[in-house]
Amino acid sequence: MKTKVGIIGAGPSGLLLSQILHLAGIDSVVLERKSRDYVLSRIRAGVLEQGLADMLRAAEVGKRMDAEGLVHEGVNLAFDGRLERLDLAGLTGGKTVMVYGQTEVTHDLYEARDAMGGTVIHEADDVTPHGLDTDRPYLTWTKGGEAFRVDCDFVAACDGFHGVGRQSIPKDRLVEHEKVYPFGWLGVLSRTRPVDHELIYANHERGFALCSMRSDVLSRYYVQVPLDTDIGQWSDDRFWEELKRRLPQEVAARLETGPSIEKSIAPLRSFVAEPLSYGRLFLAGDAGHIVPPTGAKGLNLAASDVHYLSRALIAHYHEGDESALRAYSEKALRRIWKAERFSWSMTMLLHRFPAEGSFGQRIQHAELDYLFGSKAAMTAMAENYVGLPY
Amino acid sequence: MKTKVGIIGAGPSGLLLSQILHLAGIDSVVLERKSRDYVLSRIRAGVLEQGLADMLRAAEVGKRMDAEGLVHEGVNLAFDGRLERLDLAGLTGGKTVMVYGQTEVTHDLYEARDAMGGTVIHEADDVTPHGLDTDRPYLTWTKGGEAFRVDCDFVAACDGFHGVGRQSIPKDRLVEHEKVYPFGWLGVLSRTRPVDHELIYANHERGFALCSMRSDVLSRYYVQVPLDTDIGQWSDDRFWEELKRRLPQEVAARLETGPSIEKSIAPLRSFVAEPLSYGRLFLAGDAGHIVPPTGAKGLNLAASDVHYLSRALIAHYHEGDESALRAYSEKALRRIWKAERFSWSMTMLLHRFPAEGSFGQRIQHAELDYLFGSKAAMTAMAENYVGLPY
Repeated sequence: MKTKVGIIGAGPSGLLLSQILHLAGIDSVVLERKSRDYVLSRIRAGVLEQGLADMLRAAEVGKRMDAEGLVHEGVNLAFDGRLERLDLAGLTGGKTVMVYGQTEVTHDLYEARDAMGGTVIHEADDVTPHGLDTDRPYLTWTKGGEAFRVDCDFVAACDGFHGVGRQSIPKDRLVEHEKVYPFGWLGVLSRTRPVDHELIYANHERGFALCSMRSDVLSRYYVQVPLDTDIGQWSDDRFWEELKRRLPQEVAARLETGPSIEKSIAPLRSFVAEPLSYGRLFLAGDAGHIVPPTGAKGLNLAASDVHYLSRALIAHYHEGDESALRAYSEKALRRIWKAERFSWSMTMLLHRFPAEGSFGQRIQHAELDYLFGSKAAMTAMAENYVGLPY
Repeated sequence: MKTKVGIIGAGPSGLLLSQILHLAGIDSVVLERKSRDYVLSRIRAGVLEQGLADMLRAAEVGKRMDAEGLVHEGVNLAFDGRLERLDLAGLTGGKTVMVYGQTEVTHDLYEARDAMGGTVIHEADDVTPHGLDTDRPYLTWTKGGEAFRVDCDFVAACDGFHGVGRQSIPKDRLVEHEKVYPFGWLGVLSRTRPVDHELIYANHERGFALCSMRSDVLSRYYVQVPLDTDIGQWSDDRFWEELKRRLPQEVAARLETGPSIEKSIAPLRSFVAEPLSYGRLFLAGDAGHIVPPTGAKGLNLAASDVHYLSRALIAHYHEGDESALRAYSEKALRRIWKAERFSWSMTMLLHRFPAEGSFGQRIQHAELDYLFGSKAAMTAMAENYVGLPY
């Protein structure tokens, strides 16, 4: 088999890259270790920056998002007995975010790839890149006991943090920067009406909490928990009770509870690999970097990587210009580090860090108190939340 | 002896409070443990917020500052091979800072107190407050072996971090919040022309550096050093060489060096005591809180305390209104915490923290890179640097 771009991973970045390249007349093959059903069952992010929403529209996969997604013009922060709103649209000249589940984005991308006859191979075991530092790279895999190979010009690794893509880069050609946070998020998905039409981030002495949603009838809530938490100890009742204690009274009073559809604990991590390329291999999304979810930046960063990478590949194929491919890592990383910084700072601002003592807690309150008294500070937070320009 | 307000400490806050009260017809006595020469020999801060400059003018001690002080409309940050300017005046609607040594402020305040016949008692040993939780407090001290006492309505403790003021508050009535940083500043004062007409803060892999000044012919430079540094190991030559290595080449090339007039190491600490009052005792300045010097906020915070406290005392004596005195601690603390946050964040942004690893260093660069690409972020930093409103 031959193709122009071999893409590892059928998550939203791999599929979106494949879709954008297809629309530009550039052939690709997507290899995915899991089944399509498995990919579509993963509960992930749900807040899309305007830049990503615009990309999906341009990639002809924005119709259902525009029909069903929820445009949010603000987010809310609860702290120190206060509940304050950050007017995203008002502070950024009209920019907003779109609440639309990553699962839905992936679904829409699959439909588009199907409709256009895109090649997405599932349950591909032992995907392995070869010849990345030559100009004739190829990918091998097995499926049902049979061995396969696709020759390509470039390999895009959109295969997540644990994927083979980053691991294919020689250790001495990669620097990894990491911060692990001493807690996780216990998340519950429930078929209940969201407690508010916008997100509520809560800084509380018992720990962080977040009220989010995937739609008008599907709520997503989180509470900060210690890393060694046994999820078996968290009945739905206990979760709802703990969540209510961390929310302002007037919010807790109107919280609609119900059985959890999904309940899981996710650790929080900041991670960046440098550079994001090696020979003819390019890393995009979680394969190259991880953010804690506090700033809702994970999916959006993957999208900005796909933006830079797809443009670079199109410039190569359409204009014979290699410069954007050579600049991909540096250009993507500059935006990634700013989003890493924002995600880190939101995480540090809103969670309980026992090791930081009472001084750390007061500093958080002081920052929030300052924030909501300063138009400049609110604007800075808002412009990061809606997404810095590509 | 009898007075209205007994003031402990003849640093700038004690003297300024005494001066402001005098102009409002309120009598005070200032007690100082050290000699006047000693007080005037201390090398301290040198960047005055506009609010403090205005207070000094209103207190009739602004003439020499306005003649000799240097108005700064910007500060500069060096990082990652770049040198960027923060346009304080342009970003804050014309606000500036005044570079004028704390030593000079103290000198001017002494002259004013002398001219008005103010009582400042030096070399007062064992100053002790009594009856703070009664309505008849008094201060005792000894001098030359003789015992003295002054009865007063209120006691203002402007006696610094190690003073008796805060220590007079029962332990169970005070909460202390603290952060100690794992390094110090090695500072040199030299009779050389400043390397730049504005301050330069440098984030460098060898550690933080700061180019400051006290006048057109008096420079003040600092480099971050480990806490266990032996100052005996730091010759002037070694200092200048290390400073140059941390500055952008074009700055280092024009650095004028010379013998140090003063050389010392200061640890960096964040500290806040809550509340700032107990009965008829009020804490102001370092007696109640310490900031690391990175944001140039120490003297300015003392001044804002004096602002709130002098207004509250004047309201009490002129209008019989106790409410401002009762609200003093809360009101002062709200501004103090914001300045603590700014000083902490500038410290975290600009120093080397080996424990934070390469991730922490990249986050600093990302924040600085973001900062100088965002008008909102620059405005937020500028409005803090020139001083938040009282």
